[in-house]
Amino acid sequence: MNFCSACGNPVSQKIPEGDNMVRFVCATCTVIHYHNPKIVAGCIPEWNDRILLCRRAIEPKSGLWTFPAGFMEIGESTEQAAIRETAEEAQAEVALTSLHSVLSLPHIGQVYLVFIGKMRTERFGAGTESLDVRLFHPSEIPWDQIAFTVVREALRRYVDDLAKGEMTLHVASIPGSLAKPRLEDDRS
Amino acid sequence: MNFCSACGNPVSQKIPEGDNMVRFVCATCTVIHYHNPKIVAGCIPEWNDRILLCRRAIEPKSGLWTFPAGFMEIGESTEQAAIRETAEEAQAEVALTSLHSVLSLPHIGQVYLVFIGKMRTERFGAGTESLDVRLFHPSEIPWDQIAFTVVREALRRYVDDLAKGEMTLHVASIPGSLAKPRLEDDRS
Ligand SMILES: [Zn+2]
Ligand SMILES: [Zn+2]
Repeated sequence: MNFCSACGNPVSQKIPEGDNMVRFVCATCTVIHYHNPKIVAGCIPEWNDRILLCRRAIEPKSGLWTFPAGFMEIGESTEQAAIRETAEEAQAEVALTSLHSVLSLPHIGQVYLVFIGKMRTERFGAGTESLDVRLFHPSEIPWDQIAFTVVREALRRYVDDLAKGEMTLHVASIPGSLAKPRLEDDRS
Repeated sequence: MNFCSACGNPVSQKIPEGDNMVRFVCATCTVIHYHNPKIVAGCIPEWNDRILLCRRAIEPKSGLWTFPAGFMEIGESTEQAAIRETAEEAQAEVALTSLHSVLSLPHIGQVYLVFIGKMRTERFGAGTESLDVRLFHPSEIPWDQIAFTVVREALRRYVDDLAKGEMTLHVASIPGSLAKPRLEDDRS
């Protein structure tokens, strides 16, 4: 950020009075510009004993695999965002069954909310942001071609839960920067 | 938003090519400015059979009650944000035990992530954003003096779960705008 989005004058970085973090502040109109983490809503679409993954057609990580996921928009719920991304990227219609993971990426200011959804029909296809979309048995997941660490970490938890026979909610952070408290016993 | 935060020239609202939503776009430097929902991280702090609520010292809704909650910052996890807000607003130290609700507010572009936390000690006090902080038995919650609908809805689910003897995760939207799919059976 170089200029104030309210008045167009240059901004500078300082800690506002009563705050304890550096913000972009406009000396002309006094507006403080806050930047907050973004929500990425995703879905692991299930069809019988397989899940639907997309091969990315766009950067970053074009050519690698992910479940449908993307930035949540203002005006929708987290659930709607996950359903929309699944429709856009995998041309599949899902009924969400549970929220499976809440994964923070503190170093890049993102929080992934990953739902599990049952595909309503077997119909799916590559949306404009996907090169290919395919059903994978959990044993076939291309672990070495997964686009992002957070996607791999979410899939790993999903597959572990499948093996245990019970889906549970996972709240965790994906390493990359800070030391952080964790709710998960298995990652202490 | 009136001006481009990258180059300082005026922005206009249009649907970028390949998109389907109106964005703020800079004709001069071609940057598209996305606005995304913000995460509010909150905590219901428990001390034995009581919970800690704060009376707000700031607008909006100064003088009304809430659990500690505030905007998540870049560089922290959702859990860290909930713990930090509890320390700032209620001067209490909590160990989070579970994520209790994920409540979308589509009409204002916010998502509340409400955790439950055990207070590590009985120590608490009013932070700079609170007029008063008090422990309430669930039967004493001042329902008609709760600051926000989303806070009341989260507390209602918490109290219902207490009565049932089991805490469960609630994913829902708080009415205000759009029709939306819900994961909760009890709010169809
Ligand atoms: Zn300004
Ligand atoms: Zn510009």
